[in-house]
Amino acid sequence: VTVAQESDRAFDPVAGGRARHRDEAETEFNRIVAFSDGVFAIAITLLVLGLLLPQHLTDLKRALLNDTGDFVAYAISFAVLGRFWLAHHRFFAALERFDSTLMALNLTYLAFIALVPFTSSILGDYGDHTESIVLYAINMILVSGSFYAQIEYSDRAELVRPRALAYERHLVGPRSLVVLCGFAISIPVAFVSPTAATILWILMFFVAGRIARRFAPGD
Amino acid sequence: VTVAQESDRAFDPVAGGRARHRDEAETEFNRIVAFSDGVFAIAITLLVLGLLLPQHLTDLKRALLNDTGDFVAYAISFAVLGRFWLAHHRFFAALERFDSTLMALNLTYLAFIALVPFTSSILGDYGDHTESIVLYAINMILVSGSFYAQIEYSDRAELVRPRALAYERHLVGPRSLVVLCGFAISIPVAFVSPTAATILWILMFFVAGRIARRFAPGD
Amino acid sequence: VTVAQESDRAFDPVAGGRARHRDEAETEFNRIVAFSDGVFAIAITLLVLGLLLPQHLTDLKRALLNDTGDFVAYAISFAVLGRFWLAHHRFFAALERFDSTLMALNLTYLAFIALVPFTSSILGDYGDHTESIVLYAINMILVSGSFYAQIEYSDRAELVRPRALAYERHLVGPRSLVVLCGFAISIPVAFVSPTAATILWILMFFVAGRIARRFAPGD
Amino acid sequence: VTVAQESDRAFDPVAGGRARHRDEAETEFNRIVAFSDGVFAIAITLLVLGLLLPQHLTDLKRALLNDTGDFVAYAISFAVLGRFWLAHHRFFAALERFDSTLMALNLTYLAFIALVPFTSSILGDYGDHTESIVLYAINMILVSGSFYAQIEYSDRAELVRPRALAYERHLVGPRSLVVLCGFAISIPVAFVSPTAATILWILMFFVAGRIARRFAPGD
Repeated sequence: VTVAQESDRAFDPVAGGRARHRDEAETEFNRIVAFSDGVFAIAITLLVLGLLLPQHLTDLKRALLNDTGDFVAYAISFAVLGRFWLAHHRFFAALERFDSTLMALNLTYLAFIALVPFTSSILGDYGDHTESIVLYAINMILVSGSFYAQIEYSDRAELVRPRALAYERHLVGPRSLVVLCGFAISIPVAFVSPTAATILWILMFFVAGRIARRFAPGD
Repeated sequence: VTVAQESDRAFDPVAGGRARHRDEAETEFNRIVAFSDGVFAIAITLLVLGLLLPQHLTDLKRALLNDTGDFVAYAISFAVLGRFWLAHHRFFAALERFDSTLMALNLTYLAFIALVPFTSSILGDYGDHTESIVLYAINMILVSGSFYAQIEYSDRAELVRPRALAYERHLVGPRSLVVLCGFAISIPVAFVSPTAATILWILMFFVAGRIARRFAPGD
Repeated sequence: VTVAQESDRAFDPVAGGRARHRDEAETEFNRIVAFSDGVFAIAITLLVLGLLLPQHLTDLKRALLNDTGDFVAYAISFAVLGRFWLAHHRFFAALERFDSTLMALNLTYLAFIALVPFTSSILGDYGDHTESIVLYAINMILVSGSFYAQIEYSDRAELVRPRALAYERHLVGPRSLVVLCGFAISIPVAFVSPTAATILWILMFFVAGRIARRFAPGD
Repeated sequence: VTVAQESDRAFDPVAGGRARHRDEAETEFNRIVAFSDGVFAIAITLLVLGLLLPQHLTDLKRALLNDTGDFVAYAISFAVLGRFWLAHHRFFAALERFDSTLMALNLTYLAFIALVPFTSSILGDYGDHTESIVLYAINMILVSGSFYAQIEYSDRAELVRPRALAYERHLVGPRSLVVLCGFAISIPVAFVSPTAATILWILMFFVAGRIARRFAPGD
């Protein structure tokens, strides 16, 4: 690998572009994980921005009671981001090696994660509008889609620990697809009833794992 | 443990759902601690949002002097979050193992911690309204309640280091309950006098440990 | 040390309240350092909030050119926070042990650090008002005062590495006092001319070390 | 080196001002890297602030469709910050030693990185105004210029690992200059067409590495 060849591998945090073992490049690997965790922690804490109220309201009590939609959006988004963080956490624990393509996919994924405080605040303020449901569902489709892309890519590029492979391939991957489909289905539902779409999301939170298991290829 | 069984354990950052020893899974354990610390650090720093003033005020001096409520709320919330962080810090130092239920409880706890910049900004802007006191007290009850749930669960599931067990069971747990009760009592007080409720909180900050000790089961 | 005795030591992240060696309690020590760094990193990045402009301005060019005060405040605050971070960094590198009092002092210090995005945004918007200069100077006096308190306490409680002691005692401590005095002097100056006070701060940034050396006890 | 001499080296996180090997001062080195990562993670997540919409809009759908400029600005800034983070990541991985001058340069660089949420929100709201393009380009010139200064300085001060030297000197350095020139060229272009300037940036994102290789001294 020459310097000239390397220059094309723009998204490569490690010298040379080869996939590197996590033990060889521990500091670099930990820095990527810490950066991802940082984005998750900040995004999840910025959800609170959607709740802030203006000063000098004449009726604070009514403003707080009218804020129910904001609290529901906060709870949904905290649960969703928390769950994605746990899945991301587990996925990175299963990685044995990493390369520049995976880093680019991970950054794309984080770009969609960092959007959640925006789509969540819209959901909180306009929860009864079809547009806010569609926007949130699109955000979630992009998050689960880019997470699935990371799983697929790391499987093909043989970056996953052999022991964890079956687990990733048969469970985490299918679950991401189920979540993706669930949010996709909620879009047409939102045109009939925004509330029904929200209920569908909450249901999915509890049954996604079970559905994924039923359709898992190796099961 | 089969792949199928695993799929139901949704909130499980570690493969297999068994409680794992912190030394076995050091990177994973540290990542959970770092994530919690990140949420605390961001929430505590976002408290400043409650202080921001609009541009182009005609009388800056009066605006700053009228902001006293905001500064009091900032001081209370910084002290409260700092104290909860220290307690959380100590609790995680006492853990020997962790499992998926504890992770779910911890995320719930963090969701209430991340709410504090919101309830604190309401407290700063509407400190003389009963509603703002009630809202803040509810937030604190949820924080101490979900912290107590973590302590109780980890005690029952035998996740705590044997040496630290008496300490957690007889001191940290009771103190959380005292704080929870203190905030619960402040709710009816706030209907009589919001200021009295605030003073009650500040008192509690200094005497909670002493009260907890008196009622501690093993004492 | 009994459980009962421990309960009074509320701000104690480590069991028992004794000062502990950093090697004995490495995870705990690192967590405190990481938390402090997190607050610094968030506060320094939140400085940008003081710059944000509303949408739909009719004359963007003029708005940006009128924003000079905001950019000056951003530069001053970034430099000041950066410098305090480096000093804090160096101070914690010099620590050999830590105890609960130091933790409480450190949290107090961080509470003043986390205020800077607020006082800095006021400085940017109202840089020609005496009040904004006084507010910023008070913030800086509280920051340097609480930093000095940490240095003094850790010296008395013998928490500093012997090798680093002379350095802390003769240089870092005096420099904090010089910075504190410089900001105190800028308060009366601000009543004559806010601009003169700002220039005094910038001067101090470059000469504080030199002045501290001249008055250093061991020099 | 005496205490007196040390006092002039204000931006020196390590005792004595000598360049120190990263293995000698691992905690300190890691803390600097973690602080930089923190600023990057917060700045990249604060980009979402540019997207937030007010409550009580009469036509949410139109507001979201009119927000296209904001989404483009978000995507560009996320990609740009992500790329700079990867380059910074790689640069610090190539460092063998660090000193106080490098720390001061790194802080200056981070000050320009932390500005991006501001210039990006202006770009999103006023993407068809020449001023917003010029502002963003200036921000990027300052970022790449201060990054180049870090590379140049660490090369001259012999802080880079010998193995990584050719790579830094012949590739990362030239690429920073190409990016700097590209943004400089986009300024006059913006006076003709803001859209053309934006397209130029996106093109540059994909070809900067290739151009850098062609002009690389050692190639």
